[in-house]
Amino acid sequence: MIYFDNAATTRPNPEALERAKEFTEGLFYNPSAKYGGGFSVRKQIETFRGDLLRFSHAEGRYDLIFTSCGTEADNHAIFCGGRRGNVVTTQGEHAAVFSACTELKNRGVEPRFAPVLRDGSVDVGALLSMVDEKTSLVSVVHVNNETGAVNDIAAIAKAVKAKNPRTLFMSDGVQAFGKLDFTLPKEVDLYAVSAHKIGGLKGTGALFKRKGVAIGPYLFGGGQEAGLRSGTENTFGIAVFAYAAEKKFSNLRADAEKLLAFREKLAQGLDPEIFSRLSPESGSPYILTVSAAGMRGEVLQRMLWDRGLCVGTGSACSSKNRFSRVMTACGYPEKVLDGVLRMSFSPNTAEEEIDSAVRILNETAREYQRNTQ
Amino acid sequence: MIYFDNAATTRPNPEALERAKEFTEGLFYNPSAKYGGGFSVRKQIETFRGDLLRFSHAEGRYDLIFTSCGTEADNHAIFCGGRRGNVVTTQGEHAAVFSACTELKNRGVEPRFAPVLRDGSVDVGALLSMVDEKTSLVSVVHVNNETGAVNDIAAIAKAVKAKNPRTLFMSDGVQAFGKLDFTLPKEVDLYAVSAHKIGGLKGTGALFKRKGVAIGPYLFGGGQEAGLRSGTENTFGIAVFAYAAEKKFSNLRADAEKLLAFREKLAQGLDPEIFSRLSPESGSPYILTVSAAGMRGEVLQRMLWDRGLCVGTGSACSSKNRFSRVMTACGYPEKVLDGVLRMSFSPNTAEEEIDSAVRILNETAREYQRNTQ
Repeated sequence: MIYFDNAATTRPNPEALERAKEFTEGLFYNPSAKYGGGFSVRKQIETFRGDLLRFSHAEGRYDLIFTSCGTEADNHAIFCGGRRGNVVTTQGEHAAVFSACTELKNRGVEPRFAPVLRDGSVDVGALLSMVDEKTSLVSVVHVNNETGAVNDIAAIAKAVKAKNPRTLFMSDGVQAFGKLDFTLPKEVDLYAVSAHKIGGLKGTGALFKRKGVAIGPYLFGGGQEAGLRSGTENTFGIAVFAYAAEKKFSNLRADAEKLLAFREKLAQGLDPEIFSRLSPESGSPYILTVSAAGMRGEVLQRMLWDRGLCVGTGSACSSKNRFSRVMTACGYPEKVLDGVLRMSFSPNTAEEEIDSAVRILNETAREYQRNTQ
Repeated sequence: MIYFDNAATTRPNPEALERAKEFTEGLFYNPSAKYGGGFSVRKQIETFRGDLLRFSHAEGRYDLIFTSCGTEADNHAIFCGGRRGNVVTTQGEHAAVFSACTELKNRGVEPRFAPVLRDGSVDVGALLSMVDEKTSLVSVVHVNNETGAVNDIAAIAKAVKAKNPRTLFMSDGVQAFGKLDFTLPKEVDLYAVSAHKIGGLKGTGALFKRKGVAIGPYLFGGGQEAGLRSGTENTFGIAVFAYAAEKKFSNLRADAEKLLAFREKLAQGLDPEIFSRLSPESGSPYILTVSAAGMRGEVLQRMLWDRGLCVGTGSACSSKNRFSRVMTACGYPEKVLDGVLRMSFSPNTAEEEIDSAVRILNETAREYQRNTQ
């Protein structure tokens, strides 16, 4: 099986799993326990926290709060950062941000959704025009998970702060963390990431919080994570996260370069009479989204699965409606929306897989056409 | 090392870990993905959900929402169940309930804390007198995690409903689930449990919700868990949870009987001139809390660790204050509070460990006395 749905989830890194095993064995203690075993686990967690901050060049400038997933990190930032006035976000957000912002209405805060351009990136001018003196939070996704479009969050955050210095700026970095060569600029206050998109386990995430930014907890209890996230720490998940990130960050640039070439090779190999490219060339090297206009993406997806190629359609996270909310916001007609396929890669992706995928995609789409003619 | 801090966390069940491994290997897919691999994982999660409901005799009557921990399950129930008027709880609650209820003040809901009796169980009369027509939620811990006292939540819930049928009743079942022989009665609307107290992993929990009880989500996003808990499911953690619970529930009565005998053997072996028993005889077989009045529990705890016996003091989850909030609420004098030790067992506890623990506890306490005289 050629697995090209790495934006949905990645295969956990076996080496990271192996290294982390001790947290299910000798080091199974509760990190809050006040005896040798607890102290050892506590120390290790702090080492992992430091490692993740260092990998992302955020050491000394940011705190890192371990959460149970990217969604929790997003929700934490939005509900605790956007407590009054209005919150400005985009129509290109992942559901974890979009739905949380929609919920803000029930909590007395007005959500404002800025439109996106064709490639899924935010219309920056429109976004900035929505920011006013009552804006408590602005949230802009770093890499659009459906198209791979990269928002220049450093520039956007700077422009937001210029307009209202008291506004907090957060970004969902789930598809960027460990993939883009990026250093958090001081204008980004909160940054949400997830472990299972880079070889970690589902059930682990983190929220970067710039030092000095005061937000409260979203989960209350024993006061773990400096009081900002209660609940016994997922020690095994945190260890796998740190080890997987170590691997991912150590080769970040070379991986990105390789996958950029692969992405272009795949894009160029696809039959232009069938597939149109929706991902921008300036987007993440990890994502190529195309549309086989007139075909049903989901049908194609299952046919591809049967032929040994696993791809995504819209976001795997929400699939109530026929068309993707984000792709609809990009302004595509129904015919294009129906045929959306997302190919997303990992550092383990091999060039032969790209070659095979090109062949399988073209053949399968042609077969689909023949069958429906 | 004799590990008697199983109420803080248990050693993950190696067999459960082994069986669940496939979710980090072949079945690593995102359960929301709409292709073969995703469908397989989805099906398995639903099997695990059904298993957990069946083990707890709740099948057909309750839904089960997977969460990231007991704390999240507690917070979900409290913040989504207690949205107006007042919420009545007890001074014997775990911090995950107590702190969440305290936070309710900031959300326009009045928390009311019923006093506890000497053994940590709630003063039922006082609790009921606090319930009125504006009570939206009552929360009573099933097994007090610091003393092992068991609240008769079936009877309490019934009395609460008699007073106000519109009041939701929830219980933190973290120290009861898989340990007490208990069937959720229809008066209990919400019940929070945790995996890592019964051989599962940290980072996995669940909330039982009686069918027909309408509460909203606390985490918003892709709409997982029937819209009630967004975020990619922690498939590996859920699998380990279900496998560990299978083992735990299959032997529940025999384990409880064995540990009851062990608990009493330990209690009776302790030097009565040094140790006084704080846990009630009617309490959980899994917990024996004592006090070496006049000694510092934390010092004793570290001495015991050095001698190969691992015990708890107050709750491992919160340790900002010198004395445990719950034990203080029980009404003990400072001298007693200082010397609290909690011994908590697991089905793997062996009788020889009880014998050794008796010896180590008596010897260490006598040495402590000699050194401080």
